[in-house]
Amino acid sequence: MKVTPWEVQIKTEEDYERLIKEFGVQKITEEIKNKIKELAGDLHFLIRRNFFYAHRDLDLALKDYEEGKGFFLYTGRAPSKAPMHIGHLIPFILTKWFQEKFNVNVYIMIPDEEKFLAKKVDSLEEVKKYVEQDILNIIAVGFDPDKTFIFIDTEYIKHLYKAAVYVARHINLSTAKAVFGFTNDTSIGLIFYPALQIVPTFFERKRPLIPCGIDQDPYFRLQRDIAPKLGYYKTAEILSKFVWGLEGPYSKMSASKPETAIILTGDPEKEARKVFRAVTGGRITLEEQRKYGGDPEKCSVFHWFKIFFEPDDKKLEERYWKCKNGELTCGECKRELYERIKKFLEEHQKRLRRAERLKDKFLYDGKLAQEMWNWEFKVYK
Amino acid sequence: MKVTPWEVQIKTEEDYERLIKEFGVQKITEEIKNKIKELAGDLHFLIRRNFFYAHRDLDLALKDYEEGKGFFLYTGRAPSKAPMHIGHLIPFILTKWFQEKFNVNVYIMIPDEEKFLAKKVDSLEEVKKYVEQDILNIIAVGFDPDKTFIFIDTEYIKHLYKAAVYVARHINLSTAKAVFGFTNDTSIGLIFYPALQIVPTFFERKRPLIPCGIDQDPYFRLQRDIAPKLGYYKTAEILSKFVWGLEGPYSKMSASKPETAIILTGDPEKEARKVFRAVTGGRITLEEQRKYGGDPEKCSVFHWFKIFFEPDDKKLEERYWKCKNGELTCGECKRELYERIKKFLEEHQKRLRRAERLKDKFLYDGKLAQEMWNWEFKVYK
Repeated sequence: MKVTPWEVQIKTEEDYERLIKEFGVQKITEEIKNKIKELAGDLHFLIRRNFFYAHRDLDLALKDYEEGKGFFLYTGRAPSKAPMHIGHLIPFILTKWFQEKFNVNVYIMIPDEEKFLAKKVDSLEEVKKYVEQDILNIIAVGFDPDKTFIFIDTEYIKHLYKAAVYVARHINLSTAKAVFGFTNDTSIGLIFYPALQIVPTFFERKRPLIPCGIDQDPYFRLQRDIAPKLGYYKTAEILSKFVWGLEGPYSKMSASKPETAIILTGDPEKEARKVFRAVTGGRITLEEQRKYGGDPEKCSVFHWFKIFFEPDDKKLEERYWKCKNGELTCGECKRELYERIKKFLEEHQKRLRRAERLKDKFLYDGKLAQEMWNWEFKVYK
Repeated sequence: MKVTPWEVQIKTEEDYERLIKEFGVQKITEEIKNKIKELAGDLHFLIRRNFFYAHRDLDLALKDYEEGKGFFLYTGRAPSKAPMHIGHLIPFILTKWFQEKFNVNVYIMIPDEEKFLAKKVDSLEEVKKYVEQDILNIIAVGFDPDKTFIFIDTEYIKHLYKAAVYVARHINLSTAKAVFGFTNDTSIGLIFYPALQIVPTFFERKRPLIPCGIDQDPYFRLQRDIAPKLGYYKTAEILSKFVWGLEGPYSKMSASKPETAIILTGDPEKEARKVFRAVTGGRITLEEQRKYGGDPEKCSVFHWFKIFFEPDDKKLEERYWKCKNGELTCGECKRELYERIKKFLEEHQKRLRRAERLKDKFLYDGKLAQEMWNWEFKVYK
């Protein structure tokens, strides 16, 4: 099991348990879930169903909220040379939910240099198209344009750089190597990059709450050492597992392997049809399926109902047992998922067109964006 | 002998010869000196007297000039927590001379973050005062305000960053460690910094010529590997030895040890008086001096005549032999240097007041500065 922001190898649920210990994060307890429900009036199914399963200081962020100090949200997306897939939306969906329920500011970093520094693409030009497209996909999730600031690293760097210098000064090479697994072949750009990703946690002197995949924890673990030295809050995090691709349990959904992924900007019909080739927990023959039932725990199709397309717990449970009992065939189940995906993509793509008109508000002239183009980093110690 | 941009240990002239081999640079030959003289109509005494003693591709820069392709100049100064001393002016004096003789653009980087990242100062605030003062000291050297652009890293970073990302992507950790001697205790900011210092070599698609101390060669050695990959010229360099402080041969002139250094913004009388305590090549008693003569080769006072205060070769030679013969006492010699330093500082400080009025031209609204605030890096490969 190896997990860094650039490499993820997870094969079982036990691996997720081990990561909790290895990273030193906490499980999200029933107590915390109840507190969220109490404050938000609701509990998002991504937390309810333990897809977001671990955290740091989430309880403290909630306490800050209760005490009127508030908190703010920060997340991001590194554009690559392939379009966003449906799995990429998940942290944004939870972030948007938190914004709606707690009425707080959201900061979304678009590190357009990261994949290039990590040697996953060969030029900044290569990602340029996706910088634009990714931003629209994110806006389409439904953030508040006056309380959300989306910024592109190469464009906003003047505001980030001074703080990045302070952060970078506090991270020695030995620490960076230990935390991120950097080697002699790593570019000096990628070695510096963590300093930049940490900066937005200092955008406000409140507690930042970061919804993200657990692979991003190393950045914010470092942030928690540095923040007190600069007079800022340690970040709180709410950490997710990884979405499955269409090739079965723990397979990767990867936009660069189109057969594994539902592409947000692809043709809805064509994308949705990929479901028919998905690896399920079903039996080889229909007869066996009816007799012994399937295994939803090992099924890509059920996974996607669980984390995206079936918010209703009762209906999800029904689907689970119908599969187990052999009542529901893979064909039927896939067709239902196909319909949901197709409908979702059609609606998402309508929202994309609206997003184009809203884009400037998120980047430049919404209320928060305007404030942030005047933001300057200060040290408070 | 250890020489990196952050550590210099030179004890003999032989060390300088060894550096030539170790760094793989060339000695400045008589042929090159003659070519400069032919093109410039003159040869600056800093080159004539081998204070600038080594180079890379200086011959090619001159050839480019002859062929009408031209070249440009680039140098810089990292502000610290102490004011500039007279030795800091030397690369600027030679740069200004080249600008005057060859009528070319000059770019001057003020990396205000470098000393902080190198852990020589504790905050960016600490250097802020000297950012301003250093810039005025540099302007006072007499650059052309429409052909010279002075830029502060944290202010100009938006324009530098994209190119720095390209450079950083081409430098692996192993190379950076080998070239700069980075260790596990080095901050990740300092490890990234070389990428930034290389960027101005891409400000024009002509050959950059960099007058600087030989300790800066590692940056530009790296540049020469990267430049062709991005479609730019390899830098040419003209490399100096290090100035002596007042404590004798190969001693350091350090602004943080005021007894060793002539501070540009200090009281002219008080600064010049420091010469009276300088370590010379003189004998212990006046009688011995008259009888055996002194050793100008081992004298801080003679050193400063040679590299700064006596441009006339004939007069310098006279001084040399009068010392050797015992005709000139250290007291007389020191008094003469005292007078020259005092006069120089008085005049420099007058120029400083003029520099204040010119500052905005160099930074923002001179002809070249205006162009550079619209400059954007492009890859040509």
